Amino acid sequence: MSKLFVVKIGGNIVDDTDKLNHFLTEFAKIEGSKILIHGGGKIATCLAEKMGIEQTMVNGRRITDEKTLDIVTMVYAGLINKKIVAKLQSLDCNALGFCGADGNLIKSHKRTGANIDYGFVGDVDIVNHELLKLLLDQAYVPIIAPITHDQKGTLLNTNADTVAQEVACAMAAIFDTTLIYSFEKEGVLLDVNDDESVISKLDQGYYDELKSAGKIFAGMIPKLDNAFIAIEKGLKSVIIGNADHLQMLITGDKGTTIG
Amino acid sequence: MSKLFVVKIGGNIVDDTDKLNHFLTEFAKIEGSKILIHGGGKIATCLAEKMGIEQTMVNGRRITDEKTLDIVTMVYAGLINKKIVAKLQSLDCNALGFCGADGNLIKSHKRTGANIDYGFVGDVDIVNHELLKLLLDQAYVPIIAPITHDQKGTLLNTNADTVAQEVACAMAAIFDTTLIYSFEKEGVLLDVNDDESVISKLDQGYYDELKSAGKIFAGMIPKLDNAFIAIEKGLKSVIIGNADHLQMLITGDKGTTIG
Repeated sequence: MSKLFVVKIGGNIVDDTDKLNHFLTEFAKIEGSKILIHGGGKIATCLAEKMGIEQTMVNGRRITDEKTLDIVTMVYAGLINKKIVAKLQSLDCNALGFCGADGNLIKSHKRTGANIDYGFVGDVDIVNHELLKLLLDQAYVPIIAPITHDQKGTLLNTNADTVAQEVACAMAAIFDTTLIYSFEKEGVLLDVNDDESVISKLDQGYYDELKSAGKIFAGMIPKLDNAFIAIEKGLKSVIIGNADHLQMLITGDKGTTIG
Repeated sequence: MSKLFVVKIGGNIVDDTDKLNHFLTEFAKIEGSKILIHGGGKIATCLAEKMGIEQTMVNGRRITDEKTLDIVTMVYAGLINKKIVAKLQSLDCNALGFCGADGNLIKSHKRTGANIDYGFVGDVDIVNHELLKLLLDQAYVPIIAPITHDQKGTLLNTNADTVAQEVACAMAAIFDTTLIYSFEKEGVLLDVNDDESVISKLDQGYYDELKSAGKIFAGMIPKLDNAFIAIEKGLKSVIIGNADHLQMLITGDKGTTIG
């Protein structure tokens, strides 16, 4: 099986043009098949503020009413996705942008039954791995915005960490797949204030221990939960680390390896 | 050669949810290969107003400064494109959205040298017909937003009528291609106030005559100019007419046939 890197880039990197451009330059250099999933960052929140649309966050997740859905669709699938694609194209990387509705790439269903009504938020059902394979085989590089759809005409906002996990796991049957969560931290830190305290290898037992001890900060939990779900589903390699040195994450010389 | 329909849908239809949904239902029914190019409508102008960004139009074309480019990218390639894709997906039409940067679909260059500085406006250089063919062969339906790129990292706003013409002409070498401009009028009208006065067939000589007589209204000229460019480039069939009865435009029973 040939190698595939599924890379998630966090919102804080997307918000910082210099960091994003550095990351994209490194991403473009990855040889062979690769897929990028990007988060949203603060642009959607800023736009909502300018338009006077109030935003509610619960447990780090945005409550997506209809107006907010329009905004995240514009910002994630429009502005951010296309700027990333255009930049990569200038770096000789044949990027092609998607949201989950495109080619029925990611079918999801509206989340219901929880105590909190998250609004237009989708939990992933299935990834169209055949479409991704068709394009990867022709050396296209899929760039995926975390907007999915229910195949009944409704777009749904979906956590980008989850999208990355679902895409990586769907591709694992046909590619030797590595999932990389890249963001502004060096990896999973033993001490959140000390960038040197990177845990180089984290297994489920150690993770549970750290969570119980309150050593894992809130924003990290969905990412790590997704990382362990990916391992449970049979993915061999998940790495979490700083987007500034993507190449060293790939080789396993930096960041936290999960599993 | 197998048949291909390249359909452009005008901004006034995009602005009207009922008309758009009716059109998309008819579009989904077209058998075989099809491509949709959509205009922008008033949503971008409304958003710019809400955000206090002043809009300038010259000869029916928007002057695209940097902030306006962000807005049209969000609205055309994000909101409108993804809503159309999601709706078509609900109609069993395997739509896949693009802007011109995606997969280097439409490379353009920034317009210079004119008396007017249109800002970030692109004139088309080349269409990646291989990517379109790859997807059409797998029964995907490309939905194209009129945002192109210069392959140097800059997105460019491009007239949607021109995008439709360029796409149709690029595909004509490999498909028996028909270009359809569908909008809110019955076709090219001899009397702009009389919907019954549709000219069923319009050739270059008659067009020049009507233009000289001031019988062609301003918004129609770029569309007709593009239609005649397509004919000059060797496209056999260009039809202009009302989006409400797309099926009858396809059969040539309604609208104006150019050539």
